Amino acid sequence: MDRRSFLKNSALGGTAAAATSLAAPAYAQGNRTLTMVTTWGRGLAGVFDAAQRAADNITQMSGGSLTVDVKAAGELVGAFEVFDAVTSGQADMYHGADYYFVGQHPGYAFFTSVPFGMTAQELANWYYHGNGMALHDELGEIFGLKSFLGGNTGAQAGGWFAKEINGPEDFNGLKFRMPGLGGKALGKLGASVQNLPGSEVYQALSSGAIDGTEWIGPWADEKAGFQEITKFYYTAGFHEPGAGLSVACNREVFDSLSAEHQKIVEIGSAEAHQWNLAQFLNNNGAALQRLQSAGVKTLEFPDAVWDAFGEASMAVHEENMGDDLYKKIFDDYQASLKSSSGWIKKSESAYRSQRDRVLG
Amino acid sequence: MDRRSFLKNSALGGTAAAATSLAAPAYAQGNRTLTMVTTWGRGLAGVFDAAQRAADNITQMSGGSLTVDVKAAGELVGAFEVFDAVTSGQADMYHGADYYFVGQHPGYAFFTSVPFGMTAQELANWYYHGNGMALHDELGEIFGLKSFLGGNTGAQAGGWFAKEINGPEDFNGLKFRMPGLGGKALGKLGASVQNLPGSEVYQALSSGAIDGTEWIGPWADEKAGFQEITKFYYTAGFHEPGAGLSVACNREVFDSLSAEHQKIVEIGSAEAHQWNLAQFLNNNGAALQRLQSAGVKTLEFPDAVWDAFGEASMAVHEENMGDDLYKKIFDDYQASLKSSSGWIKKSESAYRSQRDRVLG
Repeated sequence: MDRRSFLKNSALGGTAAAATSLAAPAYAQGNRTLTMVTTWGRGLAGVFDAAQRAADNITQMSGGSLTVDVKAAGELVGAFEVFDAVTSGQADMYHGADYYFVGQHPGYAFFTSVPFGMTAQELANWYYHGNGMALHDELGEIFGLKSFLGGNTGAQAGGWFAKEINGPEDFNGLKFRMPGLGGKALGKLGASVQNLPGSEVYQALSSGAIDGTEWIGPWADEKAGFQEITKFYYTAGFHEPGAGLSVACNREVFDSLSAEHQKIVEIGSAEAHQWNLAQFLNNNGAALQRLQSAGVKTLEFPDAVWDAFGEASMAVHEENMGDDLYKKIFDDYQASLKSSSGWIKKSESAYRSQRDRVLG
Repeated sequence: MDRRSFLKNSALGGTAAAATSLAAPAYAQGNRTLTMVTTWGRGLAGVFDAAQRAADNITQMSGGSLTVDVKAAGELVGAFEVFDAVTSGQADMYHGADYYFVGQHPGYAFFTSVPFGMTAQELANWYYHGNGMALHDELGEIFGLKSFLGGNTGAQAGGWFAKEINGPEDFNGLKFRMPGLGGKALGKLGASVQNLPGSEVYQALSSGAIDGTEWIGPWADEKAGFQEITKFYYTAGFHEPGAGLSVACNREVFDSLSAEHQKIVEIGSAEAHQWNLAQFLNNNGAALQRLQSAGVKTLEFPDAVWDAFGEASMAVHEENMGDDLYKKIFDDYQASLKSSSGWIKKSESAYRSQRDRVLG
């Protein structure tokens, strides 16, 4: 059976009822409120802020004629239920990390982050000027979604551990929280990988349900309080080198908006991508210093561990290549990454090295 | 005499006449068109695109109730006349590189790029989540402007030369195009520095009026055609490690806009910053390959040249420290750069090194 046709019909069937009551003319004269469900606990540092930023951009630029009402995880539906809530028409849009939905389609991983994949800037290059947005749309056609990037955490830290990692064998049997394809790669090293929403991680770590976790980076991790439980912090990670967050609209709802409201949703989301990335990166430096002052030891994984990460990551990609759309996205993504990173290395990276060398 | 008070009074005097005829109520009911003058020749790759993107964002998100009419350099005023045109009320807003206006105030250099300064991401961190935007506003108060970042070229190439640069002495007597504080630094190495708008550079280079030039990076430089004249291309430069472009509105005009139109100008400009940076970086890789195929030799400056660049750059900053506002911006900018870059080095840069090492 053709998976795409099946899913497409299924998804459209699910939204048909909602679409009927959302025909554009009924809204042409008055104000309209859209419900945005999210994968984030209310106030969760950075990620909930990104959802609120996108929502506020839309509400304020439309002068309230298109108001977005943000629901935290659990307020209307659970964190991992937002995808189904929006495709079914129960909610109008979600803000979340698309790699939570690799079960719906593994291709969604690319629109958050994949192991050994793009940095945030490389993702923006591909998304806004390569084929990234069009490929996000192609996935959206299957499920009845119109998605935009609407946040980014930057390169995520390797994570929190109870003891030092000296070789790949130290992952064997480790109970570790890591979503997406990075988690699948870690599983190949023998880790028992958990996929928990952010709001549940602290409890799992403090109860011993997990031995360690990655979350985002110093600022968000400090607010989550992981330094109260574990003291070994790996600052660079292989799993999410630039994690995009998405705004995904029910396609029928999006199509029912006026051209100016559609543009407001698009640009309001895109600005949230840049704003949120700058938020994380502006706050991480000072947070790292506070963590270090509080006794956290910052470390780098040894090369042998990185080698194992690399091998496992490529094996995970390989497993998904049977899906034509996954392969199509992977090939385009890799070509863009190679082109983007080649120039960045010769210009910005070379400059940064010289700046460090000359000014110290 | 208090320079700030003088300039502030002078600038406000200049815009008072315009403000009188632009009172908000007159525009509350109908559509409004704002004239945007630019420092760019029509169609100039990347930089004119950024102006057009910001303008289109505003026009489209407002449903045409706020339409921005973009004028290329020379269509209403010359490239370097846009600042005075907007402060005087002759035009409503400009799109340009603020370092063209270091003569008005040297602090404007920070909102494009300063030698040995921030990368594009570091600039975004400081601007959107540090004190960058507030300091841009503080400069704007002097001249009656409300400015936003509205484009970014990324790290600029070191530039085009007729022969290889083997040491700092090779800049002695060289006629070279480089605006802003980078140009002043190059002058300290004995170069005869010219500040030409982009649309005049090709002609100057081909006529021999200049020996070499920096412009932006492979994509924009290829479109400008410099490879037809010179063959030595330095890919990393010290002078503009992440050049922001600005949208600057006449303050009285901006204040007369509705809250939603103000937000549309703000977010529409910010999105153009991200969109334009991704445009340059997405296109540079392929352009570099084409240039190399066409016989261009890509090079890196030797360490001794970088050392001389560093010393000259710090000397230029030192010369401006007598201005209190310049010093205030410099100190805040340097503190943000240090904090931002510290984390990026430990996370994204460490990841990039491992990605290069593991995957090749």
